Amino acid sequence: MTKTLTLHPARLMPSNPATREIAMRLYSAVKDLPILSPHGHTDPSWFADNQPFANATELLIKPDHYVFRMLYSQGISLESLGIPTKNKDVVLETDNRKIWHIFANNYHLFAGTPSRMWLDHVFSHVFGFDVVLCADTADLYYDHINEMLATEAFLPRNLLDRFNIECIATTESPLDELRHHKKIMAEGYGKRVITAYRPDNVIDPEFEGFLKNLDRFGELTGCDISTWQGYLQAHRVRRQYFAEHGATSTDHGHPTATTANLTLAECEALYDIVKQGTASPEQADVFRGQVLTEMAGMSIEDGLTMQLHPGSVRNHNQQVFERFGRDKGADIPGRTEYVHALKPLLDKYGNDPRLKLILFTLDETVYSRELAPLAGHYPCLFLGPSWWFHDSPEGMRRFRQQTTETAGFYNTVGFNDDTRAFLSIPARHDVARRIDCGFLAELVADHRLDEEEAKTIAVDLTFNLAKLAYNLPG
Amino acid sequence: MTKTLTLHPARLMPSNPATREIAMRLYSAVKDLPILSPHGHTDPSWFADNQPFANATELLIKPDHYVFRMLYSQGISLESLGIPTKNKDVVLETDNRKIWHIFANNYHLFAGTPSRMWLDHVFSHVFGFDVVLCADTADLYYDHINEMLATEAFLPRNLLDRFNIECIATTESPLDELRHHKKIMAEGYGKRVITAYRPDNVIDPEFEGFLKNLDRFGELTGCDISTWQGYLQAHRVRRQYFAEHGATSTDHGHPTATTANLTLAECEALYDIVKQGTASPEQADVFRGQVLTEMAGMSIEDGLTMQLHPGSVRNHNQQVFERFGRDKGADIPGRTEYVHALKPLLDKYGNDPRLKLILFTLDETVYSRELAPLAGHYPCLFLGPSWWFHDSPEGMRRFRQQTTETAGFYNTVGFNDDTRAFLSIPARHDVARRIDCGFLAELVADHRLDEEEAKTIAVDLTFNLAKLAYNLPG
Amino acid sequence: MTKTLTLHPARLMPSNPATREIAMRLYSAVKDLPILSPHGHTDPSWFADNQPFANATELLIKPDHYVFRMLYSQGISLESLGIPTKNKDVVLETDNRKIWHIFANNYHLFAGTPSRMWLDHVFSHVFGFDVVLCADTADLYYDHINEMLATEAFLPRNLLDRFNIECIATTESPLDELRHHKKIMAEGYGKRVITAYRPDNVIDPEFEGFLKNLDRFGELTGCDISTWQGYLQAHRVRRQYFAEHGATSTDHGHPTATTANLTLAECEALYDIVKQGTASPEQADVFRGQVLTEMAGMSIEDGLTMQLHPGSVRNHNQQVFERFGRDKGADIPGRTEYVHALKPLLDKYGNDPRLKLILFTLDETVYSRELAPLAGHYPCLFLGPSWWFHDSPEGMRRFRQQTTETAGFYNTVGFNDDTRAFLSIPARHDVARRIDCGFLAELVADHRLDEEEAKTIAVDLTFNLAKLAYNLPG
Repeated sequence: MTKTLTLHPARLMPSNPATREIAMRLYSAVKDLPILSPHGHTDPSWFADNQPFANATELLIKPDHYVFRMLYSQGISLESLGIPTKNKDVVLETDNRKIWHIFANNYHLFAGTPSRMWLDHVFSHVFGFDVVLCADTADLYYDHINEMLATEAFLPRNLLDRFNIECIATTESPLDELRHHKKIMAEGYGKRVITAYRPDNVIDPEFEGFLKNLDRFGELTGCDISTWQGYLQAHRVRRQYFAEHGATSTDHGHPTATTANLTLAECEALYDIVKQGTASPEQADVFRGQVLTEMAGMSIEDGLTMQLHPGSVRNHNQQVFERFGRDKGADIPGRTEYVHALKPLLDKYGNDPRLKLILFTLDETVYSRELAPLAGHYPCLFLGPSWWFHDSPEGMRRFRQQTTETAGFYNTVGFNDDTRAFLSIPARHDVARRIDCGFLAELVADHRLDEEEAKTIAVDLTFNLAKLAYNLPG
Repeated sequence: MTKTLTLHPARLMPSNPATREIAMRLYSAVKDLPILSPHGHTDPSWFADNQPFANATELLIKPDHYVFRMLYSQGISLESLGIPTKNKDVVLETDNRKIWHIFANNYHLFAGTPSRMWLDHVFSHVFGFDVVLCADTADLYYDHINEMLATEAFLPRNLLDRFNIECIATTESPLDELRHHKKIMAEGYGKRVITAYRPDNVIDPEFEGFLKNLDRFGELTGCDISTWQGYLQAHRVRRQYFAEHGATSTDHGHPTATTANLTLAECEALYDIVKQGTASPEQADVFRGQVLTEMAGMSIEDGLTMQLHPGSVRNHNQQVFERFGRDKGADIPGRTEYVHALKPLLDKYGNDPRLKLILFTLDETVYSRELAPLAGHYPCLFLGPSWWFHDSPEGMRRFRQQTTETAGFYNTVGFNDDTRAFLSIPARHDVARRIDCGFLAELVADHRLDEEEAKTIAVDLTFNLAKLAYNLPG
Repeated sequence: MTKTLTLHPARLMPSNPATREIAMRLYSAVKDLPILSPHGHTDPSWFADNQPFANATELLIKPDHYVFRMLYSQGISLESLGIPTKNKDVVLETDNRKIWHIFANNYHLFAGTPSRMWLDHVFSHVFGFDVVLCADTADLYYDHINEMLATEAFLPRNLLDRFNIECIATTESPLDELRHHKKIMAEGYGKRVITAYRPDNVIDPEFEGFLKNLDRFGELTGCDISTWQGYLQAHRVRRQYFAEHGATSTDHGHPTATTANLTLAECEALYDIVKQGTASPEQADVFRGQVLTEMAGMSIEDGLTMQLHPGSVRNHNQQVFERFGRDKGADIPGRTEYVHALKPLLDKYGNDPRLKLILFTLDETVYSRELAPLAGHYPCLFLGPSWWFHDSPEGMRRFRQQTTETAGFYNTVGFNDDTRAFLSIPARHDVARRIDCGFLAELVADHRLDEEEAKTIAVDLTFNLAKLAYNLPG
C-alpha cells in the first residue's frame, strides 16, 4: 500500500492563515532567485569531469552521514550499509539494492527530521516520484533513480543549470593542488564553481598526519616551514594560489573558538614545540588560536573572508572512528565559548572594517548571549546561518528569534548549505527561504515590520547578503 | 463568590483552529490508551495493602514538594504546613483542615504552573468538583475529598483500574527487601506493579549513611563487600533479586553524568578509599562514574534497561535540609555536561545493541547540543522525556522542538510521570499526550508530516515506545 | 518617497485572531495604568532643573548605546557620530544635523530590533510624526524634534505627567551627594523621582579609581574605612542617607553572581589586601561576593530591596574602551552561574522573609535551569524582568515561557525599563504590557487560565508586583 508523495506548496509556512498569506507573498519574491552556495563540501571532480553519478545508494546513502547516523542509532550496522572501513578485510555489504531496501524499510525513522524533507524534495522535484519511499516502493525508487542518473540531464553541470546555482564553493586543504578547479576554470566554469581555503590539516597539531602535512606544505609553497615566519609565508603563498583559483574565503574548523595574540618570541617558541610534534593539548589549542589571529591579519591583506566553525567534538565514538575513520556521524557538539575566546583576535583586528569574520556555532545557547551581542558591536563580525544539526526548520527559527533583536538582519550573511549532498542543495535553500519568509511574516503579522520592508529583507537574506559577505564573483 | 471549574476538552491544544482540529483527531487516537508508568515514586505499600488514603492534606499537600515549595517561596513556613521535621521537638501545625485552608487561600500562586493543571484535573475528574478551589470552597473541598477517600472506589487497586494503568513501576533501593512487592506478586498484581533498582545509596560515597549501607548491602546479598569484585557481585545478586520481583530497569540519580573506565587495579584502589569513607569529592565522582559503567555491563548481561538522571544539586537550602531532611523542594538543577562525561562508558559499551541507556536532564541546553546528537548516533542511547521542572507544557514542547530534528521520534521512550502523587498520574499522562499531539499537529499543519503518519507516531509515543524501551511485561 | 508611519493598535499581539482578541481585552485593562519605573538610569538633573533637552542628536543618538552600537557594527565610526572620546584632541563630528542624517540613512539596520520599535513609538506618539524616518525625511525629523524640545510641553517634569509616570528611580553611587535629589525633594517631587544605591565603585576592587573612591567614601560618611568594620559602617551610613533621599533599593552590577560567607577574621584579612590595591582577580571576586552577603544583611536591617545584575563582560572592546571609555556598546554577556554562586548568601540569609533579593541575568539558559527553581523555592528570591539585550518581544516571551511553570507569576516583580533614554520609557513599558498580555492570552486560549484570572495577573504584572517588590511610595 503506497502513499502519495506531494510537496505542499505552503509547507513550512506559518499555520495561521493570515500569516501564511504574508509568508507566501514574501516567498514568491525569493523562491526563484539564483542559489549562492558560498560554503559547502561537494566534490569538485563532479564539476570538472562532468561524469554521471553511480547509483542511488552510492549517491544518496553512503556519503550522507545524516542518513546512516540515524540508521546506526537504531541498531543497523554500518557494515550492512556498505560504509567503507579503514581495514579492508572486513566483510561489507556490496549489494547496493539491498542497502537501498534497508534504507527504505526504515524511512519512518526520519519523520520530523530535515533529512526527511530534503530527501522527499529530491525524490519529488529532482526525480519526479509521486509515491512515498517505503518497503513496497524501494525497487521502483532504486531502478528509476539509477535510470535517471544515467541520462544527460543528470550530469553535474546540467544539474548546476537546472538547480539555478549561480555560484558554489567547494572546500580544499592547502595540500590540494586544485587540479579539478584548474580544469573547471579552463572549461569556463571558474566563476560558477570556486574553492575555499580550509587549512585545518596544517594548523591543528592534533590533526592526523599533521607533521607530514607540514612537510608537504613547505614543498608545495617553496617556503621554509622550519621557522614560524616561513610557516606564515607558506600560508600567504597558498592563500594567494587559492585566490587565483577562485577562492574568496577561508574556513576554520577548530575544536574551540580560542584565539591568541602572542609576542613574536612566544610564537616562535610555540612553533618549535608544535613542529616537533610534542605540543600538549593546551599548547595545541593556543597554537590553533594564534594561527587564527594570523589568518585574520592575512585576510585584511588579501581580502579573503574568514569563517570560523568551532565546537564539534570530532570522532566521539572511538570504535566507529577506529573502524571507519572520520566523518561517520560520530561528531557531537560541545559547549562553546566565544566572548573570552575571541578577545585576543578582536583586540588586535576587531575594529578593522576590512576584516570579515563569519562565526558559526553548534551551541545554540550562544546565539542571544554571545554571538548576537558580539556581531551587533564589532565591525568585523558577522553571523553565519544555523549550522549542521541546527540547519533545520526549528533550528533556523531559533537562530532568527535569538539573534535578530540584538544583531539585526544585516550582521548575518544569508544561507549556507554546507553539504556534500549535491542533489539536496535546492531543497536546503528552499527550506531556508521558507523559514526566513515565515519569520519575517510573523514580524509583519504583529506589526513589527511592514510588508514592503520585509520583502526587501527577504531578498537580502536570500541573495545580497551572501554575495556581499563572501565577495562572490559576478 | 465561587468560580466554575471546567476542564476544556481542547485544553493545551494549539490555538490555531485548523491545527487544533488536527491535534484533536490525533488525541482521540491516544487518549484512551492504557497508561504505562515505567518510572515513578509511588509507595508500593499502597498497592500491597490496598488501604484507604488518610485525608486531603496528607495525600495532596504534605508529600508534594511541587506544592509546598511554591508556598514556601512566598513566605509560608513549612512548619505551618505540617511538613515533618527531623527534630521531633518542633511545634508543627497538626490541624490538617487549617493546612488545607492555607493551600486554598494561596491557590492563585499556582496560576500558569503544571501543578495547577494537575490539581484541577484531579479535583474535576477524580473527585468530581465543579467549582474552583479558593478560600470560600476550602471546606467543601476538604470534606468532600475526605469522604471520597474513605470509599471503596478510592482504594489504591481500584484506582489502578479506574486510571487504566496497565503497568506502574515504583523505585526501591537495593537495601529494600521488597516486602510490598512480594505481597503484590502473591496477590496477582505482579505484572501491574513492578519495582526498579535504584542503587544510589550504595553507589554514592556522599550519600547519607553510605558506609552503613554498604555493610547492609553485603549482609543482604551474602557477598564480601570488602573487595571491589565482591561489591560488584553484590550488585549482580541484588539486580537478579529485583528482576525476580518485577524490575525491568535500573535508575541512577547522580550529581553529574560522569562515567569512568578505569583498570581493574585502579578500581580496586579507588574502592579501598571509598569503603574507608575518605574519598574526596573528585574521587566520589569518579567512583560513581565507574560503577555506572559497571552497571551498563551488567545491563548487557541481565537485560535491565538503565536510566540516568543527573544534574540535580540536592538539598541546596542548608537550613531546610538540616531541619526537614531530603526532598523538601530545595533541589536545584545545575549545569550538566554529557559529551565528555559519558565517553568512557560509551567507549566501552556504546556500540552494543543489547544495552539500553535512557538519558534524562534538568539542563535543557543539552537537548539540541548534546543529547539529541548522542541519541541520534549511539545504538544504546535513548532520550527520556522532559524531566521534573520541565515536565510541563512548555517544557515538553521545548523537548520535542529541540530533539526531534536530530534524534527523531524513535530514539525517545514515551512519557514518564516520575511522581509520588498517585492521583495526578492520569492528569500527567494526559498533559503529555496533548502536548505530543499538538506538536505533531504543527508538523502536519505545515506539511512536514502527513496525518496518518502522525497518528502512528502519536500511538508509538503514548504506548509502544515505553513498552519497548523498558521491556514492560504483558 | 516617504512611507507612512503608523503604530498598529494590535502590534506585538498574537497573530491568531481569537487569541489576539483575548490579548487586546487584557491589554485594555492595563494600558493606561501609571508607569512604575523602579530601576533605571535617567539623569536626575533633568527632573531637578527641568531644563529643555538640547536637540535630536544629543537626546536620541549620542547617549543611546543600543543605537550607536548597531551603527558601529556596520562600519560607521563612533567619531563620525560625535561620541565623545576620553582624549580631547581627537577630531569628532560636531555637526549634529549631519550625525542625524547618518542615523536616518541607516535606519533600516534596526529592522526587527526593539530599538526600532521604541524609536518609532517615540517618533509617532511623543513627536507626532506620520512618516517613517529615512534619508528623505531626516531634515523634517531633525527640525521638528528640535522645535518640540524647545517647548514647555517637553520639559522633563511635564513629560513625567504626560507619560503618566507615578514613580521613577535613578541610580547613584554612594559617592554622589544627591544634590539633584535634594532639589527634587525640596520642590515636591520626592515621591515621584527617587534614587537607588549602586555601590559598585566602592565594592569592586577592579573598578577604575577604586582606592580613591574608598577614601572619598570614608570622608563622606565619617567612617574609618581603614578597617573592615568601618567600611561596613560606611555602607550603613550611606544606605541610610540614600533611604532618606528616597531610595527603596540597592543595585549591584557584578561580573559574576559570586557570594561569600567568610569568617570575620577572613573578611578582615581580605579587606587588608583589597584596600592596598593588591587583590588578585579571584580575591576581588570573593570580596565582591562577601560584600554582597553583607548587603543582604543590611537589607534585612534597613528594608532596602536588593538587586543583583551579574554577568556582563564590561568594556570587551579594548580599543573602544581606551578611546571612548565605559558604556560604549562594548559590553558583552558572559555565561553566568547562580546555583553555587548564591549558596553562601542563601545559606546565611536565604530563609529570612524580610529579605528581598531580585535576580537578573544576561544568560537566558539559567531561566529554566537555575533562576526559576531558586525563586520558586527561596522566600527571599524574586526574578527581575528580562534584561538589556533580552528586553525585547522575543526575550520577554522566552522569560515568561521559561520561568512561569516553575516560579509562577508571583515570584516575579513586573517590568523595569532600565534605561537612560527617557523619551522611550512609555514605549518600553507598552511593549512589556503587550507581551505579557499576549503571553497570558495564549494561556487563556489553550485553557490553562481563565480570562478573569488572567486579567488580575496582568494588572499585578503591570503595577502591583513592582510596587510591592520595591516598596515604592504612595
